[in-house]
Amino acid sequence: MSKNLTKRSEDYSKWYNELVVKADLAENSAVRGCMVIKPYGYAIWEKMQAELDRMFKETGHQNAYFPLFIPKSYFSKEASHVDGFAKECAVVTHYRLRTGADGKIEVDPDAKLEEELIVRPTSETIIWDTYRGWIQSYRDLPLLINQWANVVRWEMRTRLFLRTAEFLWQEGHTAHATQAEAITEAEQMMNVYAEFAENFMAIPVVKGVKTANERFAGAIETYCIEALMQDGKALQAGTSHFLGQNFAKAFDVKFTSKEGKQEHVWATSWGVSTRLMGALVMTHSDDNGLVLPPNLAPIQVVIVPIYKGDEQFEAISAEAKQLMARLRKLGISVKYDDRDTHKPGFKFAEYELKGVPLRVAIGPNDLANGTFEVARRDTLTKETVISAEIVSYIEETLKKIQKNLFDKAFSFRDAHITEVNSFDEFKDVLENKTGFISAHWDGTPETEEKIKELTKATIRCIPLNRKEEVGVCMLTGAPSAGRVLFAKAY
Amino acid sequence: MSKNLTKRSEDYSKWYNELVVKADLAENSAVRGCMVIKPYGYAIWEKMQAELDRMFKETGHQNAYFPLFIPKSYFSKEASHVDGFAKECAVVTHYRLRTGADGKIEVDPDAKLEEELIVRPTSETIIWDTYRGWIQSYRDLPLLINQWANVVRWEMRTRLFLRTAEFLWQEGHTAHATQAEAITEAEQMMNVYAEFAENFMAIPVVKGVKTANERFAGAIETYCIEALMQDGKALQAGTSHFLGQNFAKAFDVKFTSKEGKQEHVWATSWGVSTRLMGALVMTHSDDNGLVLPPNLAPIQVVIVPIYKGDEQFEAISAEAKQLMARLRKLGISVKYDDRDTHKPGFKFAEYELKGVPLRVAIGPNDLANGTFEVARRDTLTKETVISAEIVSYIEETLKKIQKNLFDKAFSFRDAHITEVNSFDEFKDVLENKTGFISAHWDGTPETEEKIKELTKATIRCIPLNRKEEVGVCMLTGAPSAGRVLFAKAY
Repeated sequence: MSKNLTKRSEDYSKWYNELVVKADLAENSAVRGCMVIKPYGYAIWEKMQAELDRMFKETGHQNAYFPLFIPKSYFSKEASHVDGFAKECAVVTHYRLRTGADGKIEVDPDAKLEEELIVRPTSETIIWDTYRGWIQSYRDLPLLINQWANVVRWEMRTRLFLRTAEFLWQEGHTAHATQAEAITEAEQMMNVYAEFAENFMAIPVVKGVKTANERFAGAIETYCIEALMQDGKALQAGTSHFLGQNFAKAFDVKFTSKEGKQEHVWATSWGVSTRLMGALVMTHSDDNGLVLPPNLAPIQVVIVPIYKGDEQFEAISAEAKQLMARLRKLGISVKYDDRDTHKPGFKFAEYELKGVPLRVAIGPNDLANGTFEVARRDTLTKETVISAEIVSYIEETLKKIQKNLFDKAFSFRDAHITEVNSFDEFKDVLENKTGFISAHWDGTPETEEKIKELTKATIRCIPLNRKEEVGVCMLTGAPSAGRVLFAKAY
Repeated sequence: MSKNLTKRSEDYSKWYNELVVKADLAENSAVRGCMVIKPYGYAIWEKMQAELDRMFKETGHQNAYFPLFIPKSYFSKEASHVDGFAKECAVVTHYRLRTGADGKIEVDPDAKLEEELIVRPTSETIIWDTYRGWIQSYRDLPLLINQWANVVRWEMRTRLFLRTAEFLWQEGHTAHATQAEAITEAEQMMNVYAEFAENFMAIPVVKGVKTANERFAGAIETYCIEALMQDGKALQAGTSHFLGQNFAKAFDVKFTSKEGKQEHVWATSWGVSTRLMGALVMTHSDDNGLVLPPNLAPIQVVIVPIYKGDEQFEAISAEAKQLMARLRKLGISVKYDDRDTHKPGFKFAEYELKGVPLRVAIGPNDLANGTFEVARRDTLTKETVISAEIVSYIEETLKKIQKNLFDKAFSFRDAHITEVNSFDEFKDVLENKTGFISAHWDGTPETEEKIKELTKATIRCIPLNRKEEVGVCMLTGAPSAGRVLFAKAY
């Protein structure tokens, strides 16, 4: 099975595309740019959703649901928003089909909408139009709302999870009485995302803010978390925007302050999407298939019996079921694969491909000796564990795997942040070493644009924890207030 | 607050519309026919989702996600499906906007899709097109998949939750090797829905099958659960379809059987939607507002302090927080409303309107006597409970409320199933008593249609548990194989 997978060193991009399909995560649909998320992939997404949802609720947010469609005119209301968005969108123009003269289905020309509807690419406009009715007084604030939804952006070049026309995401939209409170909220949600990425996905991230060029259309400040993939390219894993009063002004959302004054509301929005699935695959997986962190693995432990004849099978199954029951009590998700249609070797390859963190094999010798053979997916090592220790061994090893994956990714990332002081050095690292490049930049959009033109690298972020260091721009020699992180990016 | 609510006896329909908005469940959006589900309403829907999802997984189903858009031509592939559906749909014709000469946003005429895309009204077509790639052998069956999604049907007359252009739902789509297995699945899911409606929503339902007229477009048999609202109108609360091999044939989905033969796959689909929110409101609520069954109430217990001065407030708050901690340990969701911006009377009215099952008030006398005043939302009765008994009292009373709501709805339903033996009697009951009417019918679509024309009543279902009784049709006098249930319906 796994031997059919292209090696990362041969063609990283092909390896990714093949792996996503072969590991049953997702596939392309008959509709251009839209994917089907298969049960195994969706089960991982559900685990992400559950944890994020818990974190959002713990920080005081509630879920709600807003319309899929947005009237076209809404996009014109916030000027910078429409420039950055609303170009590549799915547009609904009609509301009825009919059977044509040839017996085929056709669009009914009499059922044309007066105003076209846009399938939401993001929901700021329709939500702020709604908030106008919800917010009158400072007592109605803060309004802390999140939505789990599908959105559509008509991308021309699509890739499973990384860039699809339709994708699933959550979008938080909050309203506040003061600027300070809104900024705190935007920063808090960036921190929630970082915590989730590091503790659950085992993906180390750099926290930072975007430059004006890379900022969300309509935002004053975009906070982000940036991750590094195994091919040395960066991936933006989540963003949180401080929107100032832009949308409140565009949609006339005011409140009466404690002092009785009418003021515009301050806003944030923040989101992560099924793109995280792509980040998960590209951070940890190897040439044998997926490698999943235990915190997100739909199956944490698989038990495979190795037997000849019914009698052995019965005895091994009894052992397996007992172990299964004990593990489930601890909240560990475990599967016993007793299919008689496939050989153990086939099963081993399958679970390796699917990234199951721990595989337990039970054969006749194990039965005789009271042992289990336990294989780790992350290190591809095996150990024989005695019956008395098996449960605690599994419990601890799952924790070790979670930590090991993070540590490994962290070392890789750490070895791939390179400081450079000249543009030649910059180009050399970009071409030969890849990864994040920490360099001085003069702070202008023009220079940023020029560097992108010349190298395809963009400024991923201005790191929040960057050390104080003035310098000169590597391209123009003009003064720089500090180093920023460049990379080629997904 | 609640005194502004129209009485059910005055105008049931107006009462419903007002209640949904005033209790913060949902509101109409700026987009025709699309609703905004507000946080309080969405929290109830989330509780429904969680329980249904648990039940689906327990019966072996997995979640997945399929595209929002369906190519127009797919609807023509299953002939009876297209007749029943695909008429009132949102049609995507373009994929780009541009800024026009006048500076306004307009649809880019150069970005016209070759084939129009339909926003899914239901997903049988795109899913069966996908299943073709997933199913080769009997080993791939059964395929038991569910999707949580939004769907769009361009309804002309819409009402919050009951009939909206966009709504949220789940749709199960399963594939089986044999007809018998598929029928068993369709029946099983009807039973899952019935169990959910009765045990969680406290809504008694009649299980049955639809007549040919009322059957899902493309189904061989449609199983349903039918509920009765307080105004005597029926509401279809869930359907489960046995689809035969119709979609497998239309999309060429075959499998190799154990015997090595190529056969078409057997199918089911089944769904419930946010329409259930409407059923929930209309079954239990009263002239004071919502009445929620404890199993679905986002807040099961609210604690309201009654105090003068900071000292009393502190002492009462200490008591409240202790109670809150003890209840939370039992998994009871409890809110302490310590807002100083509103008076107790205002809060009482608010939680009554929002249907919180139990309200606990703590005043200075309670503090002195070691008591709590507990008010039940369903019966509007109050009791004084001593400190030593408060936790078990609340735990038991929540169970009593859940049961009481079901019993009350059951009695009402039971009193509103009327057997009639003539068409005059039928019309009389329909007009003066309302509810389900059990009557003989000759089994023809023509008679069914005629009765609908004359009275607006439809056959809600042929009950599965109907007693064996032949008779003559109340309208035509032709022979009838048994009684069916008629009603006016939502």
